[in-house]
Amino acid sequence: MIEPLNKGIGLLEQEATAEEIVGRGWNLLREDLSLPAAVLYRERIEHNVKWMQRFIDAYGVKLAPHGKTTMAPKLFDMQLKGGAWGITLATAHQVLVAHAHGVRRVLMANQLVGKQNMRMIAEILADPEFEFYCLVDSAANVDQLAEHFRDRGARLKVLLELGVTGGRCGVRDDEQLKQVVAALDRARGSVDLCGIELYEGVLKDEESIRTFLRRGCEGMKRLMAEGEFSRQPALISGAGSAWYDVVAEEFAAAGFSDAVEIVLRPGCYLTHDVGNYETQQQRILKSNPIAREMRSGLVPALHIWTYVQSIPEPDLAVVAMGRRDAAFDSGLPKPALHYRPGSSEPQATPAHWEVTKLMDQHGYMKISAADDVRIGDMIGFDISHPCLTFDKWRVLSVLDESYKVVDVVKTYF
Amino acid sequence: MIEPLNKGIGLLEQEATAEEIVGRGWNLLREDLSLPAAVLYRERIEHNVKWMQRFIDAYGVKLAPHGKTTMAPKLFDMQLKGGAWGITLATAHQVLVAHAHGVRRVLMANQLVGKQNMRMIAEILADPEFEFYCLVDSAANVDQLAEHFRDRGARLKVLLELGVTGGRCGVRDDEQLKQVVAALDRARGSVDLCGIELYEGVLKDEESIRTFLRRGCEGMKRLMAEGEFSRQPALISGAGSAWYDVVAEEFAAAGFSDAVEIVLRPGCYLTHDVGNYETQQQRILKSNPIAREMRSGLVPALHIWTYVQSIPEPDLAVVAMGRRDAAFDSGLPKPALHYRPGSSEPQATPAHWEVTKLMDQHGYMKISAADDVRIGDMIGFDISHPCLTFDKWRVLSVLDESYKVVDVVKTYF
Repeated sequence: MIEPLNKGIGLLEQEATAEEIVGRGWNLLREDLSLPAAVLYRERIEHNVKWMQRFIDAYGVKLAPHGKTTMAPKLFDMQLKGGAWGITLATAHQVLVAHAHGVRRVLMANQLVGKQNMRMIAEILADPEFEFYCLVDSAANVDQLAEHFRDRGARLKVLLELGVTGGRCGVRDDEQLKQVVAALDRARGSVDLCGIELYEGVLKDEESIRTFLRRGCEGMKRLMAEGEFSRQPALISGAGSAWYDVVAEEFAAAGFSDAVEIVLRPGCYLTHDVGNYETQQQRILKSNPIAREMRSGLVPALHIWTYVQSIPEPDLAVVAMGRRDAAFDSGLPKPALHYRPGSSEPQATPAHWEVTKLMDQHGYMKISAADDVRIGDMIGFDISHPCLTFDKWRVLSVLDESYKVVDVVKTYF
Repeated sequence: MIEPLNKGIGLLEQEATAEEIVGRGWNLLREDLSLPAAVLYRERIEHNVKWMQRFIDAYGVKLAPHGKTTMAPKLFDMQLKGGAWGITLATAHQVLVAHAHGVRRVLMANQLVGKQNMRMIAEILADPEFEFYCLVDSAANVDQLAEHFRDRGARLKVLLELGVTGGRCGVRDDEQLKQVVAALDRARGSVDLCGIELYEGVLKDEESIRTFLRRGCEGMKRLMAEGEFSRQPALISGAGSAWYDVVAEEFAAAGFSDAVEIVLRPGCYLTHDVGNYETQQQRILKSNPIAREMRSGLVPALHIWTYVQSIPEPDLAVVAMGRRDAAFDSGLPKPALHYRPGSSEPQATPAHWEVTKLMDQHGYMKISAADDVRIGDMIGFDISHPCLTFDKWRVLSVLDESYKVVDVVKTYF
């Protein structure tokens, strides 16, 4: 049910299902939505889902899209129906949300810490159809997990996280790895090691990423040879939204055969962006043979639409969109479409329009004095960093190519 | 009703009222909440409400706290019961939320633009007990408002916004002002001018702020003399969370008598912070005679609590708190309290602990190799910028001094 007091939708007298809302025939261009509004373009989302699944399939690996990006169970469902192996998540709360919405396989690419978080996971593990993995990178955490899950007579499946010096979590060297494996040996039956995980996104250049990935593959083979894994096939997982091509290449080239399942975890591909991920996509389209062959790439599928509310200086349009509405941590939103209510269709914005600053609820858009811009004009903005844009919206309208609302998606941040 | 799938609360089998949740006796230190969690300290919030109201009363002015900070109707209610004149908001959506929760006087310190937003406001103006003001700074916007509200047979009360070159919205000079006033003269009966508004927070030094405020007072007197205001007393409003002392001084010193109601709009005072607003508060406590006399100041009343999840290097503790959980746009969170589950009470963190980086779901906390920190330890973080912290949480637990949950507050972002 969609509640009436959400921003970015039309006026609802009471809560309504997405279907009821679609039945109202709301159209963005007819100003049926209260702006600012975050919207998803259905055709573009569907294209991105197919693009990534084709890419992943071509490498013979598995896709567990990072669901923390959208936290929208309807989009999880679309990804799973599109061929995804499971959903990746980051916190116990996120796992709870996914499980409650029918997701049946989750890789929590994070440590599980704290009594209440362990309890939440233990409760949903009582569902025999729910398959769940989380990460460990310390003996202390393994011991805590073992105690909690043993007391409940439950079993927890984990992946051992590898990390790099200066990076985030993950064991840095063989000595640390040995300690965690020793703790896992003690914990067997309560905490079962099923594979290895790493997140290459903390590194910034391809060479060090490839080195790290090869270390992961070697570690995988060693632990496999030592009989440390409780799962057949064992799992190896890597890949954020920027370097999934390199991870696919390295893992696929490691020659694991059927003894290993390779799981990649990009998340931002679903809506893509015009910032960091577009830069990475350009690199991939140039350098990756499979991406080149596909002759298309990911497309930006998320816009924030809002109004010009003030033009107090000839080269400044203040728009009703701020840090509460769009990510600003890796590039500001970029004007993409300009629509004057009553006109036939949105036009591409001139290249010189630029957001120069965001406050909590306002954006500063640089224009030229000669531009035809009026108060009440609608502007559609591309964004950088989908994750920190999605989490500012509790509902997003899904539009078709005529800007009609064809679905409404709820988020659970 | 509090829904089960919110982050930062304990395990709920189904939705529950705040009272039912309080009845469960949850305590942060007993790990009854899933961390990360945002918590408010009841005594500190109450102190801040009283402090600001006393300060405002001492100047004989009115308080309309900016509700965009918290978007928590329960906190609006606390502010109104504490003596506030009304609630300030920034968007039509926010006004809808406040009205639905019983707020009866709202200053929307922003332009009202767009068909659906105007429609939302027009619908709630049908409530005769609802008093509402918004801003205008252009003839174009006045004309649009006049058309919309005249068509509905409704009347809209507005304040004329003054601005400064290089600032945000608001008329820059007399020529612009004249055009807006002319449009308002045409619109009278549908759009009624009730006063003047400015936001001094776009300026950075006291001298230019005082100059701007005096310009506001002069404009006020001029428009009053010209009989432009439909409201007796007319309204003048200014003040964000940083310079409310200077605004109170200047407006109170303008000698308006009873012909003018002065309304100030700080918002962040409710929870305060340890960043920019604490810096400003130190200035106020030093320079403002009334604040000096009160012998206390605002206190930080909002913490993000989370766990240490990994200590992969001797001087790095990774904590389960990221950009999804705390503001990072004007200073990173600061470690404040350290609690080991099972121990007697939280201890102040050593001064050398520091958050050096936030990713989406993780924080990097610098420690020393010799520190007694363990995986599973709980850390309470102070924050900078309450606005961009609140909007990451749909529910916040309110704690008493023993860390017991004594209320649960919902937000509507």
